[in-house]
Amino acid sequence: MKALLVIAHGSRRQQSNQEVIDLAAILSKRPEHDFDIVVPAFLELADILIPDGVETCAKAGATEITVLPYFLNSGKHVTRDIPEVITAIKPQYPDIDIKVTQHIGASPVMLDLILKTASDK
Amino acid sequence: MKALLVIAHGSRRQQSNQEVIDLAAILSKRPEHDFDIVVPAFLELADILIPDGVETCAKAGATEITVLPYFLNSGKHVTRDIPEVITAIKPQYPDIDIKVTQHIGASPVMLDLILKTASDK
Repeated sequence: MKALLVIAHGSRRQQSNQEVIDLAAILSKRPEHDFDIVVPAFLELADILIPDGVETCAKAGATEITVLPYFLNSGKHVTRDIPEVITAIKPQYPDIDIKVTQHIGASPVMLDLILKTASDK
Repeated sequence: MKALLVIAHGSRRQQSNQEVIDLAAILSKRPEHDFDIVVPAFLELADILIPDGVETCAKAGATEITVLPYFLNSGKHVTRDIPEVITAIKPQYPDIDIKVTQHIGASPVMLDLILKTASDK
């Protein structure tokens, strides 16, 4: 059972956090991927932190969790903070395969996304 | 002559700013769009601020500037700060058509980008 855990930075502005929660909900309903659930979580400044997100995946029966940093730049949050939290959590879930992917800003698809957004005037 | 001005937040970490500068350079070289130049700029915390970016576009001969907020959430930077800076600058460039697009986080392509990144393990 595969879970996708989308990790955003988190904001004091609840609407920004809600946008990520909504994004995960929309992704959950899309048919063209092989994740059984898509769960949002935040590095800080929000109610749902990374350990909460991992626990949600575990309770849903996940055997694999793909952790996706929803960040544009390869700053300390991506290179240090998220991996540290995941490394600290892993021993609690010895039966779950937890992997961290690239952050979204590193995707070559970002170039297409920028051009598409720039052309939708 | 069309310019695309990519506006990122800006970071004290120079490497994060450089990633945006590199992204704009890569976009400049891509053939499949109708922008003559792609210019990076930052809202704050960086050497190249929005007025610098607009001036670069103007000096290059731009008659149209598409301003693209390279932001994930619709926070105050997107809804207030960037539009305010652009509105303040416009009178200096009466012959240039300057438009601000949606921020990239609002793009439906973001869903595809997330799934693609999550599947490239």
